[in-house]
Amino acid sequence: MSGAANFRSCGSVLVTGAGRGLGLQIVQTLASGGFAPGRIIATARDPGAAETLQELAKKHPNVHIVPLDVVSQESIEQCAEEVGRLVGEDGLNCLINNAGINLVADFHSVTAEKMMENFHTNAVAPLMITKAFLPLLKRAASRGGAMGIRRAAVVNMTSLLGSVELNWGERANNFKWYPYRTSKSALNMVSRCMAVDLEPDGILCMAIHPGWVRTDMGGSEAPLSPEESISSVLSVIGGLTEKDHGSFLNFTGEQLPW
Amino acid sequence: MSGAANFRSCGSVLVTGAGRGLGLQIVQTLASGGFAPGRIIATARDPGAAETLQELAKKHPNVHIVPLDVVSQESIEQCAEEVGRLVGEDGLNCLINNAGINLVADFHSVTAEKMMENFHTNAVAPLMITKAFLPLLKRAASRGGAMGIRRAAVVNMTSLLGSVELNWGERANNFKWYPYRTSKSALNMVSRCMAVDLEPDGILCMAIHPGWVRTDMGGSEAPLSPEESISSVLSVIGGLTEKDHGSFLNFTGEQLPW
Repeated sequence: MSGAANFRSCGSVLVTGAGRGLGLQIVQTLASGGFAPGRIIATARDPGAAETLQELAKKHPNVHIVPLDVVSQESIEQCAEEVGRLVGEDGLNCLINNAGINLVADFHSVTAEKMMENFHTNAVAPLMITKAFLPLLKRAASRGGAMGIRRAAVVNMTSLLGSVELNWGERANNFKWYPYRTSKSALNMVSRCMAVDLEPDGILCMAIHPGWVRTDMGGSEAPLSPEESISSVLSVIGGLTEKDHGSFLNFTGEQLPW
Repeated sequence: MSGAANFRSCGSVLVTGAGRGLGLQIVQTLASGGFAPGRIIATARDPGAAETLQELAKKHPNVHIVPLDVVSQESIEQCAEEVGRLVGEDGLNCLINNAGINLVADFHSVTAEKMMENFHTNAVAPLMITKAFLPLLKRAASRGGAMGIRRAAVVNMTSLLGSVELNWGERANNFKWYPYRTSKSALNMVSRCMAVDLEPDGILCMAIHPGWVRTDMGGSEAPLSPEESISSVLSVIGGLTEKDHGSFLNFTGEQLPW
């Protein structure tokens, strides 16, 4: 967990989709792991229904809950304003675009509507959110230093299933999820495009696969517990440097093929 | 042009977006190239406005124009019915998903709407069209033979700009087109997913980059004429074999990285 220790000297981290699943686990691990950043901003579509998150915020005064519906531009802008007030002149150091959905559909059941909806949440929303938070990320990055979460970083939670190269042979036959796979490939391209555009401001941008995890989305057959996955993911995120800019990494830190 | 000669023994080819640009050039080259397939089905959103295509159909009785708005499910289904009547028991041998748009937008000007619209036309439509034409492709493929256009093939016109790997360094700085790049990465994933699912029926599926061409979309600075691009593209498509199934090829026939 050497990388994760860097969160201790990170002013603020924002995690989308923190109401449950991996997003909630990120907040939980960061808040109680002995390396808590100054501020943990947890967004959820319906904070009132996120009971565990509410309890965490009561227990840890550095956890702030802000409502965010990632597919609503109005909601994104309101959230960015509220977060701007929270972080003030320090800006935002680390944006984790974690919110995502999986509208399971194979070749026969897939519809244009399912494709569009999954694409909107998983690929378009991280782009629109990053655009809205750019002034706060720039504010943090303008203080200088080496690229990484202590300066400013955008981390996109993607999936191995978004790898076009790996979608072949045995692997391909296991998960024939058109909307999900396509949305994650698209997110990988968005991530790479943003890396190119954020580089001049010193903002690191990359995509990470959290592994196959026992969450509502991953199901009970998955090999990893949320704790195991996120412990590894935060170690990788905390240790990101210039060489990881624009990359697609596994939760183990290894590079994945596009 | 050894590969293109195979079109002569190909019963039917359907090209979407044949009203202008590369789609029109495909019809033109196929109809007058000395290796014309039995039937060339040219679809266009507004056939009445496609004058050059209308002239081609008057001159070449094997050119059939069918209206198709690729983002309308109703239009896709009507088109598939009409093509079914045209090809009858022979089925459809080669479906070229060529229709595409480029809603130019960089990081600052991109909107969720532009992302969604480009994704719908460039990535979702080829999937929904292939689904609708599957019974006709299966009919052609059921006659057996080696994989390729003489049996049954789905060809997706993609772009080098859809390569996530190549979107780095100098190349990345030239074309910061978020909606277009993302839609083509997504199309590459759709293409790869379909290759997996169409393989049991003996239907070949792949994606090809036609080069940067002087069309309305490519602009006047592009190095290739439509004739040069399509001459090369048809040679590659005509020569496709089992080894190209699931691939991403340049118009020169070389493999491209995802």
